[in-house]
Amino acid sequence: MSVDRYVADQRDRLLTELFDFLRIPSVSTDTARAPDVREAATFSAAALRRAGLEAEIHDTPGHPVVTARGPHVPGAPRVLIYGHYDVQPAEPLELWHGDPFEPRFEDGVIIARGASDDKGQVYAHVKGVEALLALDGALPVNLGFLIEGEEEIGSPNLGAFVEQHAQALAADVVVISDGAMVAPGIPTITYGLRGLTYVTVRVRGAGRDLHSGAYGGGVPNALEAMARLLAGLKDDAGRVAVAGFYDDVRDLSDEERAAIAAVPIDEAAFRADAGVGATPGEAGYALLERLWARPTLDVNGLSGGFQGAGAKTVIAAEAMAKVSCRLVPDQDPRDVLAKLTRHLRTQAPEGIDVEVQAEGLGYPAMTPLEAPSVAAAQAALREVWGREPVFARSGGSIPIVADFQRLLGAEPLLIGFGQEDDRAHAPNEKFAVDDYLQGVRVSAALLRALGGAWAAGGPDA
Amino acid sequence: MSVDRYVADQRDRLLTELFDFLRIPSVSTDTARAPDVREAATFSAAALRRAGLEAEIHDTPGHPVVTARGPHVPGAPRVLIYGHYDVQPAEPLELWHGDPFEPRFEDGVIIARGASDDKGQVYAHVKGVEALLALDGALPVNLGFLIEGEEEIGSPNLGAFVEQHAQALAADVVVISDGAMVAPGIPTITYGLRGLTYVTVRVRGAGRDLHSGAYGGGVPNALEAMARLLAGLKDDAGRVAVAGFYDDVRDLSDEERAAIAAVPIDEAAFRADAGVGATPGEAGYALLERLWARPTLDVNGLSGGFQGAGAKTVIAAEAMAKVSCRLVPDQDPRDVLAKLTRHLRTQAPEGIDVEVQAEGLGYPAMTPLEAPSVAAAQAALREVWGREPVFARSGGSIPIVADFQRLLGAEPLLIGFGQEDDRAHAPNEKFAVDDYLQGVRVSAALLRALGGAWAAGGPDA
Repeated sequence: MSVDRYVADQRDRLLTELFDFLRIPSVSTDTARAPDVREAATFSAAALRRAGLEAEIHDTPGHPVVTARGPHVPGAPRVLIYGHYDVQPAEPLELWHGDPFEPRFEDGVIIARGASDDKGQVYAHVKGVEALLALDGALPVNLGFLIEGEEEIGSPNLGAFVEQHAQALAADVVVISDGAMVAPGIPTITYGLRGLTYVTVRVRGAGRDLHSGAYGGGVPNALEAMARLLAGLKDDAGRVAVAGFYDDVRDLSDEERAAIAAVPIDEAAFRADAGVGATPGEAGYALLERLWARPTLDVNGLSGGFQGAGAKTVIAAEAMAKVSCRLVPDQDPRDVLAKLTRHLRTQAPEGIDVEVQAEGLGYPAMTPLEAPSVAAAQAALREVWGREPVFARSGGSIPIVADFQRLLGAEPLLIGFGQEDDRAHAPNEKFAVDDYLQGVRVSAALLRALGGAWAAGGPDA
Repeated sequence: MSVDRYVADQRDRLLTELFDFLRIPSVSTDTARAPDVREAATFSAAALRRAGLEAEIHDTPGHPVVTARGPHVPGAPRVLIYGHYDVQPAEPLELWHGDPFEPRFEDGVIIARGASDDKGQVYAHVKGVEALLALDGALPVNLGFLIEGEEEIGSPNLGAFVEQHAQALAADVVVISDGAMVAPGIPTITYGLRGLTYVTVRVRGAGRDLHSGAYGGGVPNALEAMARLLAGLKDDAGRVAVAGFYDDVRDLSDEERAAIAAVPIDEAAFRADAGVGATPGEAGYALLERLWARPTLDVNGLSGGFQGAGAKTVIAAEAMAKVSCRLVPDQDPRDVLAKLTRHLRTQAPEGIDVEVQAEGLGYPAMTPLEAPSVAAAQAALREVWGREPVFARSGGSIPIVADFQRLLGAEPLLIGFGQEDDRAHAPNEKFAVDDYLQGVRVSAALLRALGGAWAAGGPDA
């Protein structure tokens, strides 16, 4: 029997099981939901066992990690599938058209918190593996699963877990389906992720809040200083003005620029989706280049002084800002932190103290396009979709991917089953039924292609 | 008997009565305190009657206004004493060394909310008038009192009240003691107040909050735009960069600059008090000139995006800022509002909408130094203090003063009895016993001098 046939026959069960998974409100950031998060771990382990794998639940200082392992296949590549069973909070609830944890169909899509991010996508892999074992009685690769419960809170315990279990998790390829295709129906291999340097900036002017009548014109204003510091972080051409910021940026090759230019992006739709009247950014680069392959800097938060209704004539002692940089290979988030900190300190106006605190650092990641795993993925996607996949980069960051490369020696292979407009993190999150079932087919085809790829001369050959 | 003797004889009673006034927690911003605010109005009216005046309590849409009137004195000038019986909230209570509404002595000062701002100062006038009536059986001027209960919330109903009662309140001079001397023991006539234009600025970039991974580098960032707009409001020399902002500023004369330079200000003490390491401001002007006689602009509040602990990679749709300008003669707050609004709108980066909302407008005010009331005040202060008073301006704003000028035709005469470090609006507010009693003496001497000034050729002569 073909995988296609298997999916068609089992369609109802595949959906019913996913609905059961989506019903568990495994909101990792909400401590009151900890029992629900653990239930989702238990559910994941049981699903992996039903598929035919050996599964384990590992306690961590936070939420549990679920691992699973398939039968040993001598000489075959080692493939690790990574995903997460935790979800974002559903709030604001009033914007949902129904209970976020009571999944339902609507025009061919599943609506529920976690439908696309990431329960639906990781479950497609579980069902793809189940199909292979049911149909073939064996797997073409040495397969592992790593499903965590803290992705939505920044994976605070996963790095240590991976380091501790590096030998058991070691893999040639780590497959991640936690994202989107460039457009519906266009199979996509994402080969680049941006890194991140995220800081809290605190600026202090006076020793206490002062009355602007008595002191205005004679004392440093922390909010004004913050505005000047933030404004000075970019020049008028939209380039980051921090000295040395671009030093380690790998330039885009002409081939890559051509490939990105060939990606179908509807800029009018992009504007409409984001509700923006312009798409400003670094001069000299196209929109997709800026979103995927160029580093950038954003102010993510601002506060200080009087924020209520009406007027209060205060000169605030302190201001706070959140600032983050998206990084590209070969930028080092620690190096960017040092440069950003130095810049802010040296640019501080007279009488202003600046304090910079790192809140998050993540390395950028790239899949080498010449890797055999990429050719295998291309073949699998071509087979299932009947068309050539496109190569994309992502503007986002999955810091654990660089850890997988460094600690496990695994090349990342990112194949999103979802869509950009799936409303991940937003009300009425959705996942198309067709995208889910296609994910099951792609998962099975990918594992077969990966097995074939290495048999034909891959890392283990 | 001399006023001096009267004050010495009645010292204990003058203090006991003020303590009773201070015990009333007349916090005007706290609706739960409305009965206490009314009690303070009743107390004020009773005190005015005991002093020998006819007093009335007028209801307003907010807290009551108290007025009083002395006997008619044909040919004598009309003098209105303005003050307020409401106080700031006492919070944070834990920073007080005792109950803010249980006044007590400590090293020669009275500690209580409202001690200096303004109960102690306005009550000194009530007692000064009482002394004159007790000693002379008559007053040298046509005297009125206007004591409001909404000064600390911006006098929302006073302008309309004054307009409505303009005939009854009409005066040649309005005496206000709601401020400070330039230093302890240095009698001070404040002849200038700054005006105010206060706005809320809202900046909108995207239609909703966006993920900085997916959108960073391709969309307008409202917070960054706000920072650039605010940073662009001043040039590097500390001058306000809004076109036409300085057009109507009355230049400081050489005489006035010399007079300001002669005012004793301890810049080290100023820095220590404010907790600042520098006193930056408009280039080309001394600190006191900038604080008193130059217009300025301050950012009073900032907010937008993520303000919590840790990291959230959001590109916020909106940012908010509070911005205010202190104005000097002959700037018009409405004109400055228009110029500021135009500047912010024209400077908005591509894709950014800017909205400016006026929150408060107040005209600057100046007392003409050649007015006979000024000479009378000089004489009275010289007589009581035994030294020449200094002339000062204030960086603060009392918008109602311009209304007094416009609606009542009254020249303002500002003589503060308190000190800059009286901790008005702050915990452990204080008022020196000596400053209070000297205020009683100055009030009586001032009314006598004002009566004499006009008899010698003033407005009514």
